Amino acid sequence: MSDFQWIENGSVTATPGFLASGVTAGFKRSGAPDFAMIFSETPCNFSGAFTSCTFAAAPVQLCKNRVLNAPFIRAAVINSGNANACTGHTGLANAQRTAELAAVRLGITPDEVVVSSTGRIGVQMPMDLIAHGIDLGAAALSADGGENAVKAIMTTDTVPKAAAVKLELQGKTVTIGAMTKGAGMIDPGMKVPHATMLCYITTDVKADNALLAEMLTSNVNDSFNRITVDGDMSTNDTTIIMANGLSGVELKSGTPDAAAFRNALLAVMQNLARRMVLDGEGATKFVTVKIEKARSEADAKVLAESVANSLLCKTAWFGGDPNWGRVVAALGYSGAEFDPDKTNIWYDDQPVVRDGGDAGTPETSLLGIMKQREFTIRIEMNEGSAGYWVWTCDVSYEYVKINADYHT
Amino acid sequence: MSDFQWIENGSVTATPGFLASGVTAGFKRSGAPDFAMIFSETPCNFSGAFTSCTFAAAPVQLCKNRVLNAPFIRAAVINSGNANACTGHTGLANAQRTAELAAVRLGITPDEVVVSSTGRIGVQMPMDLIAHGIDLGAAALSADGGENAVKAIMTTDTVPKAAAVKLELQGKTVTIGAMTKGAGMIDPGMKVPHATMLCYITTDVKADNALLAEMLTSNVNDSFNRITVDGDMSTNDTTIIMANGLSGVELKSGTPDAAAFRNALLAVMQNLARRMVLDGEGATKFVTVKIEKARSEADAKVLAESVANSLLCKTAWFGGDPNWGRVVAALGYSGAEFDPDKTNIWYDDQPVVRDGGDAGTPETSLLGIMKQREFTIRIEMNEGSAGYWVWTCDVSYEYVKINADYHT
Repeated sequence: MSDFQWIENGSVTATPGFLASGVTAGFKRSGAPDFAMIFSETPCNFSGAFTSCTFAAAPVQLCKNRVLNAPFIRAAVINSGNANACTGHTGLANAQRTAELAAVRLGITPDEVVVSSTGRIGVQMPMDLIAHGIDLGAAALSADGGENAVKAIMTTDTVPKAAAVKLELQGKTVTIGAMTKGAGMIDPGMKVPHATMLCYITTDVKADNALLAEMLTSNVNDSFNRITVDGDMSTNDTTIIMANGLSGVELKSGTPDAAAFRNALLAVMQNLARRMVLDGEGATKFVTVKIEKARSEADAKVLAESVANSLLCKTAWFGGDPNWGRVVAALGYSGAEFDPDKTNIWYDDQPVVRDGGDAGTPETSLLGIMKQREFTIRIEMNEGSAGYWVWTCDVSYEYVKINADYHT
Repeated sequence: MSDFQWIENGSVTATPGFLASGVTAGFKRSGAPDFAMIFSETPCNFSGAFTSCTFAAAPVQLCKNRVLNAPFIRAAVINSGNANACTGHTGLANAQRTAELAAVRLGITPDEVVVSSTGRIGVQMPMDLIAHGIDLGAAALSADGGENAVKAIMTTDTVPKAAAVKLELQGKTVTIGAMTKGAGMIDPGMKVPHATMLCYITTDVKADNALLAEMLTSNVNDSFNRITVDGDMSTNDTTIIMANGLSGVELKSGTPDAAAFRNALLAVMQNLARRMVLDGEGATKFVTVKIEKARSEADAKVLAESVANSLLCKTAWFGGDPNWGRVVAALGYSGAEFDPDKTNIWYDDQPVVRDGGDAGTPETSLLGIMKQREFTIRIEMNEGSAGYWVWTCDVSYEYVKINADYHT
């Protein structure tokens, strides 16, 4: 299923026909890059998935409108440092104005521009900085600008997160490039991606908007919706896919080619999702929580997320404490119905709970697992045949420090 | 509505006819007191409310059985340092054996004894220590032993939490005494109390078990179920009320006397609930989250708990950050449906959000509120007339430290 190759240092500009840039417009007091643009030389089919937060930010509302009404897009404008969320009609007008300014500068129409923002909530967007960013960003657009673009969308991220793959379809090469940001305010389990996470994906395949939506939704559910850092969802989460068709490869729903493409796209999205957790605010551990043999996938999901979001589990992982009592407590209060006497739990390959009680593995055998950067908690409910997994991380002093000090 | 008086340094032994003790049986490596007993000189009507965690600990199962089947009880045996949870049939047999040992020592029957445990999950109870504790505890029972008893049930609590009130009914004096423990693994929103919280209440009123159950359930929903420290619920949560009838005051459901008694009982339970939050693991702030004008109480509850359990809100409170963006984000992802443009928010008396956007209060006016030990976040949804409130606290470095180091 891995009929694709990773492109080293790949990003959104790995895909032919896409230019990008990342510049300093002045949103961040630190002077770090804070403004990114993506530009396609030709019109792109596209789709998007967005936060389900009731307080969806103005740029999210603009993007949703594009997905519903625009046949294609050509550009994306992204700033970090200000979320343009809870900014009312002025905020919406500012997002729309951002699209207009970019359109004028790029010689396209406002409907061909999508906008994303991440950063502090509740502050009106300084439109002079937006105008400045568009001037600088448009001038800096280049076919190797992906690396700068991904740096410009970081907030509390400690490393830029971009990836690209290529695969052969119909005798031609198809490319998928992507960049993402997100380290905190990250929680799974919604219909759409969420967390202060932004993800932009470029590809040169030809696919209509409906097929792109179908693939994006399905893959988001198996990638970004599987990760949780802190159980908090953001107002601004956005994933956009843009497909310019330049490869000459056309995909139709239900074909093996579409399946191969979706598989490669999932690999890119899972790669980025994983790296978001690894870069989770203050995270020192990457933990896979895997539920098996549950009554239903809904139950399995509730159980997995209850453990993954338990503050007591997360702090125990930080402390390297093999204490499974907190894991069973989190299963027990999850709301899922099950017989606790049938529950088995493993840390990696070591049994820790057997039939709802201590499996007898000496704690010394478990301490080594808990010290690893990564481990898996596998939980067998023995209630049915459904499963679900999530990726999460621990909660450390550093998490508290970052979030007690940082003004979002 | 406060036709009662607080009894200074009151505890479970403030009520005539009740003896108590707190001794060191050896469960805690520190040598701190870890074993408490309550004994009533006469049979007591009683009721209880318990964790809804699927992995209910063995002593919880024993107590539930007493509530269902025993007409009265006379004694409670409580240990800290071992939860007797996830211990299977052996654990149940050990809880039953604990009741038997206590019954023999006290000259009553096992069915007259309830048992509670708090501490590490998944370790079989060292029954030699139980036997030792019962010997010491029974010998130490005294009419002023309440103070020792409350100290013996502490785990990560930093202060003992007991209270008592007296009130006049039918020309006679009625007393309510109570003790509680709980500082972490505390979360609201269940049908019953939860958190690793134990609460024992004594009173000398005469009331049948059905009326006691009615009053306890209603009051638990307005006290212990309103508090959250970390969103984690425990396997062992127990609240027991014992009524020996010695005051000669008999209560009937629906009478003004029953209402006055319930009101005084609620005051005791809210006092203890408040102090559990103030003593929350590592807590530096006490925060009331109050939802007003919601569509339904269920909505108001979901909204209040979403804010109270948001790790991003809790760390912002720790940092003294007036950042309301995290509050609206938590409302927005709560799952409740509402129009975000109608939301108003106040920190104490200062407006921070008006119609879903910045209310314009300068941050300097808010910093003073955030520095207080206590403040209220009042949120007006303008969607209906329902409300709900919860009490919660911040999450600090100390919370992480306590829970990364502590073996529950």
